[in-house]
Amino acid sequence: MDYQQKFGVFSGSGFHLDDCPARMDDDRTKEQLEEQTQANCAELAKLQYKLYAENRRAVLIVLQAMDAGGKDGVIRHVISPLNPQGCRVFSFKVPTPVETAHDFLWRYHLVTPARGEIGVFNRSHYESVLVEKVHDLASAEAIEKRYAQINDFESRLTAEGTTICKFFLHISKAEQLHRFRARFTDPDKQWKISDSDFRERAYWNDYQKAFDTAIRRCSTQLAPWYVIPSDYKPFRDLAVSALLLDTMRKMHLEVPSGRVDLAKIEQLLDAES
Amino acid sequence: MDYQQKFGVFSGSGFHLDDCPARMDDDRTKEQLEEQTQANCAELAKLQYKLYAENRRAVLIVLQAMDAGGKDGVIRHVISPLNPQGCRVFSFKVPTPVETAHDFLWRYHLVTPARGEIGVFNRSHYESVLVEKVHDLASAEAIEKRYAQINDFESRLTAEGTTICKFFLHISKAEQLHRFRARFTDPDKQWKISDSDFRERAYWNDYQKAFDTAIRRCSTQLAPWYVIPSDYKPFRDLAVSALLLDTMRKMHLEVPSGRVDLAKIEQLLDAES
Repeated sequence: MDYQQKFGVFSGSGFHLDDCPARMDDDRTKEQLEEQTQANCAELAKLQYKLYAENRRAVLIVLQAMDAGGKDGVIRHVISPLNPQGCRVFSFKVPTPVETAHDFLWRYHLVTPARGEIGVFNRSHYESVLVEKVHDLASAEAIEKRYAQINDFESRLTAEGTTICKFFLHISKAEQLHRFRARFTDPDKQWKISDSDFRERAYWNDYQKAFDTAIRRCSTQLAPWYVIPSDYKPFRDLAVSALLLDTMRKMHLEVPSGRVDLAKIEQLLDAES
Repeated sequence: MDYQQKFGVFSGSGFHLDDCPARMDDDRTKEQLEEQTQANCAELAKLQYKLYAENRRAVLIVLQAMDAGGKDGVIRHVISPLNPQGCRVFSFKVPTPVETAHDFLWRYHLVTPARGEIGVFNRSHYESVLVEKVHDLASAEAIEKRYAQINDFESRLTAEGTTICKFFLHISKAEQLHRFRARFTDPDKQWKISDSDFRERAYWNDYQKAFDTAIRRCSTQLAPWYVIPSDYKPFRDLAVSALLLDTMRKMHLEVPSGRVDLAKIEQLLDAES
């Protein structure tokens, strides 16, 4: 399957979220999908080593979804196998007073990945055109400006060597209900539920519209959105891992050659021993 | 094996690094050691979930060693299986001008783990009584004060809910040479070698003395050092994982109970569907 072609949005024109499936049929068994995901992750870890050794470029992964859409699951299944030394996950909650005292991109820019690193945003700067739009937390005028500001921000990052991959984990409203219910029955997961989850569910359509607009306005060749059918978790994880792998392969990463005079050091060591 | 009793330094009085082995014989095969490490890590990941869910306490893991002592290896084998969402690794390099413009603990305090998190320091605040002592980067008087300042800092962190585990990965001078040589012959690892590695090797004895003093002066019941025989990597990983597991078990972590009125939400959902 050509995941790039199937799920990538490289130009927003003509994009409609309604056209995107939340579930993808696949002939393979759950075990086959999981095996392929693991194989992809093993290769991703090798490419991560090269990225780290090269120390010249960075990768930024953006995860967005409705509540219970699977952001935590993708982190556990696809990001976890990477080396934590070169990979940092940032989860953005309600902004602090210090954060809201700055421009809306400030807190995200602060923690963009450094050269050699993979950064994962669990929620991201897109919240400023999602939750803030749905709940009128900024003026319509301000929101309207933000799409271009986000594109500028991302284009600056890519120009300076950061490859950006944005994933919208697309689930159906029925699947969200199903997952909320599952959290009730599992005592280990009840702590995750808060009233706000249910309050937000009432705004489902507004959120879908906000995602639709954000993806249409902020999809570019260099910072594409991928709309992943996420009702079925094994397929979701496989698709994300395959797209990351594809993206990192195209970076043509190589371990740099040694920076020291090996012959000279060999002499030093010989003299010592 | 009682790893706590065997490798833990809970009070510095009478401690001598010379008494600590860099290699530990163990009847188990390499495969058995690795299997046990993996089993420990799987249980650690479960405890990490509880730590994250509880959101009340934190864990700080400090890794120190001579060059090629295995800090990266421990991160890859013991820390990697944890969920990156609740675990952050910080590697401290030569301080930046902004960092040196502050007191020596500033840059470390900035990135101590938040409630619910596990923080890993690859090198740490101890560098200020190690490399800075060996190379006279601070006055003897300033260094002398730092042991107490470090103890105060750590005791403040523990009083506020952070459990601290400090690991010195103890290798022999011969093993370091062996590992340096191995890096030459592997083209994928040559980039890791820099001249400074060899310059520092000439100060081996000074570093050992500095470690000896630091461990003697900064080992307490609540923030112990563990001196891990690290010449043999599978044993090193096993010992670190066992000690972390033991430490986190003693925290009696529990997933908190739900915070919402489930019956009420159930009604809401029923009404919807």
